[in-house]
Amino acid sequence: MMTHQATEQALTTLVEITASFARRGWFPATSGNLSARVNAPGEPLLLVVSASGRDKEAMTAADFVLVDESLQPVEFGLQPVASPVELCPSAESVVHARIYQATGCGCVLHVHTVWNNLIAERCSSQGDVVLRDLEMLKGLDIWEEAAEIRVPIVENLFKLPALAEAVVERITDQRVPGILVRRHGLYAWGANPFQAKRHVEAFEFMFEYLLRWEVRHDGDQAAL
Amino acid sequence: MMTHQATEQALTTLVEITASFARRGWFPATSGNLSARVNAPGEPLLLVVSASGRDKEAMTAADFVLVDESLQPVEFGLQPVASPVELCPSAESVVHARIYQATGCGCVLHVHTVWNNLIAERCSSQGDVVLRDLEMLKGLDIWEEAAEIRVPIVENLFKLPALAEAVVERITDQRVPGILVRRHGLYAWGANPFQAKRHVEAFEFMFEYLLRWEVRHDGDQAAL
Amino acid sequence: MMTHQATEQALTTLVEITASFARRGWFPATSGNLSARVNAPGEPLLLVVSASGRDKEAMTAADFVLVDESLQPVEFGLQPVASPVELCPSAESVVHARIYQATGCGCVLHVHTVWNNLIAERCSSQGDVVLRDLEMLKGLDIWEEAAEIRVPIVENLFKLPALAEAVVERITDQRVPGILVRRHGLYAWGANPFQAKRHVEAFEFMFEYLLRWEVRHDGDQAAL
Amino acid sequence: MMTHQATEQALTTLVEITASFARRGWFPATSGNLSARVNAPGEPLLLVVSASGRDKEAMTAADFVLVDESLQPVEFGLQPVASPVELCPSAESVVHARIYQATGCGCVLHVHTVWNNLIAERCSSQGDVVLRDLEMLKGLDIWEEAAEIRVPIVENLFKLPALAEAVVERITDQRVPGILVRRHGLYAWGANPFQAKRHVEAFEFMFEYLLRWEVRHDGDQAAL
Repeated sequence: MMTHQATEQALTTLVEITASFARRGWFPATSGNLSARVNAPGEPLLLVVSASGRDKEAMTAADFVLVDESLQPVEFGLQPVASPVELCPSAESVVHARIYQATGCGCVLHVHTVWNNLIAERCSSQGDVVLRDLEMLKGLDIWEEAAEIRVPIVENLFKLPALAEAVVERITDQRVPGILVRRHGLYAWGANPFQAKRHVEAFEFMFEYLLRWEVRHDGDQAAL
Repeated sequence: MMTHQATEQALTTLVEITASFARRGWFPATSGNLSARVNAPGEPLLLVVSASGRDKEAMTAADFVLVDESLQPVEFGLQPVASPVELCPSAESVVHARIYQATGCGCVLHVHTVWNNLIAERCSSQGDVVLRDLEMLKGLDIWEEAAEIRVPIVENLFKLPALAEAVVERITDQRVPGILVRRHGLYAWGANPFQAKRHVEAFEFMFEYLLRWEVRHDGDQAAL
Repeated sequence: MMTHQATEQALTTLVEITASFARRGWFPATSGNLSARVNAPGEPLLLVVSASGRDKEAMTAADFVLVDESLQPVEFGLQPVASPVELCPSAESVVHARIYQATGCGCVLHVHTVWNNLIAERCSSQGDVVLRDLEMLKGLDIWEEAAEIRVPIVENLFKLPALAEAVVERITDQRVPGILVRRHGLYAWGANPFQAKRHVEAFEFMFEYLLRWEVRHDGDQAAL
Repeated sequence: MMTHQATEQALTTLVEITASFARRGWFPATSGNLSARVNAPGEPLLLVVSASGRDKEAMTAADFVLVDESLQPVEFGLQPVASPVELCPSAESVVHARIYQATGCGCVLHVHTVWNNLIAERCSSQGDVVLRDLEMLKGLDIWEEAAEIRVPIVENLFKLPALAEAVVERITDQRVPGILVRRHGLYAWGANPFQAKRHVEAFEFMFEYLLRWEVRHDGDQAAL
């Protein structure tokens, strides 16, 4: 069945991405979550999403759940492993779901890093991070000369449905495949897991670059 | 036997945690130690604890010792490996034992990192580190909105029984599963090794975040 | 056939270098590229070069392409793997090709790191980075006492043929096996992949050293 | 034969240490070297020492050479592997040899890190780095309360025999198992490879701690 194949393929890539980001410390303390759409954009949303509370250093395909558009688990033959934590979809799946609806993307990744927390806090008063004239913008599929984009920053609302609405309200520039939540982390997305991973890596590189630049040259923050 | 099974299970997880933290450089120079309770809180304390002086990059279950409440090794069928270092429980086991008694926890982890040494030194005059309104507090199982906790800092007393007493005297807020020892490191704990590992990762993330924030914005240290 | 053997050998080493640099985060977001010459300097250029758009964490020999001096793929028996990205040579191959012609080298490596971006930006107004009296200069095969070299910095021209020309115009000191592109990254080269890798590592070490030194001692920047 | 066994054992541990330090980036650009004594302190010096110019990410026992007190290779049945670099002992073996003679140690390790280069430069005018009242001093086998040691810093002399003499002239405190060479790196030693590795890790931890502390608190540098 098409969806079954798409699910297997998505899970394989998501498990690889989980391991890769976990090695870098981008999923500390079981934080972060990953999802991929396993059916076409026109149909009612069907996602695989990481289960809540798992240690990302040891995630397998069995640590993901298939959910429908109401974020209810769908039977799929996935075997929940014995675990001190129940196999339920990540609480932040509601944010993922809204991003799929708003952007038509195929994969959403959410990571907490020290650098993305710092840049969100640093630029929170102006409401976005300006990324300008950096080669690494090509990692976001932005190929114009001397391009400039603004990565939105939203406040970290306590109630996740409210956070989900605040996030999609700020998704106004289709070129920008990510958004920062202050004192929380980065959501980034792409047409597929491979592209979403690339976007996360490009954002994190540029955030670290801007912050390390700033600490050296406080009087010259053109890039920020 | 129940205890035997619990011991095997605890050792498997502790060996995985040791390897994971060693890869990050959190056990430099054979420093740090790990323990887990292998019987119920009501009974006299029975622990597996890492042996003293082992290189954490190559720890196996045979590098842990089973000890009773007086921290004496208990026969268990563990085979001491040939080694230049004798297989005796970590000298800091006395601190672990007191933390189990004071908190009723199931696992204690102790790591020396540059960031936990820096934050303890930085905040030593006020006696604690304030962690406020950070998403990563959920990694400590603190789920209130805009939560604020204080991680106690104690001086690094030379005599370990005295250090153990100083540590438990400062464990006054049951929500806070960790304590800093100045110029030394972090003790963190949890109901089981999985949870204790999560707590260590959450603390280390927030310590690094606060210190990197501060070096940028010396005039605005609300979080500290 | 000689070229076939040389190609297999080059690919084996390039795959190892790709994995090693990817582990360090030196190829973020599919950035960077690698090539090696597989015939003698006197003959028309024949290169293996990394395919465009691949995730460097999972590169195999099948992710490299054999190209001639006009950068057209040459039949070689390489099997393009199934992939969302087409197997075409990296767009920056034109820069590689010009470096081979200008220097007579056997391998060119291109990496984007936070430190090489920072040093290029920091020193862009003076047009080069001075490396002086550092033991690590031996990693560039510079063995004089108290040696001093200047690593050129060029602006990041949007059109790659123009960038290639700007790069080779600044290759004037045969002792210096590398050049920085501002807000972009480092190109480094050597007689073979082993030596080119050594040169990249030596440059990156010295760039990080100089930047961390500067942030501490703004009044005393002899090395910069 | 005793020496043969000691050699095999030393090589096994040195290969493990090489891999571990290489993963951390402590041997950039083929820099650094390792040696271990394979006979008793009373006898004429017999060492295994890393061959010159090897990439430390892929070192095996075949990349080490057995040398006598005049640093000439001794037949031992080691099979030089095919390599673009000749299998000769590291040029810095002369420094190793003098450290064995001066200290009676059993292993010498030499690493180039950004942090050990920074601390040597930072403290070069006073001629040593003060390490005071840090728990990590126990990693150097210094167990007194509030201990204080001074790690000597020597200038980086171009001629290695002169550097070797400068190094041993400054080895005056038997408690301090290491010495810094300015703009170059750290030599550290121990009774055996296990202990020497521990000493390197303890030094590197304390160097990074002191430098990160300083960048935050320029007015309060008690530890430096």
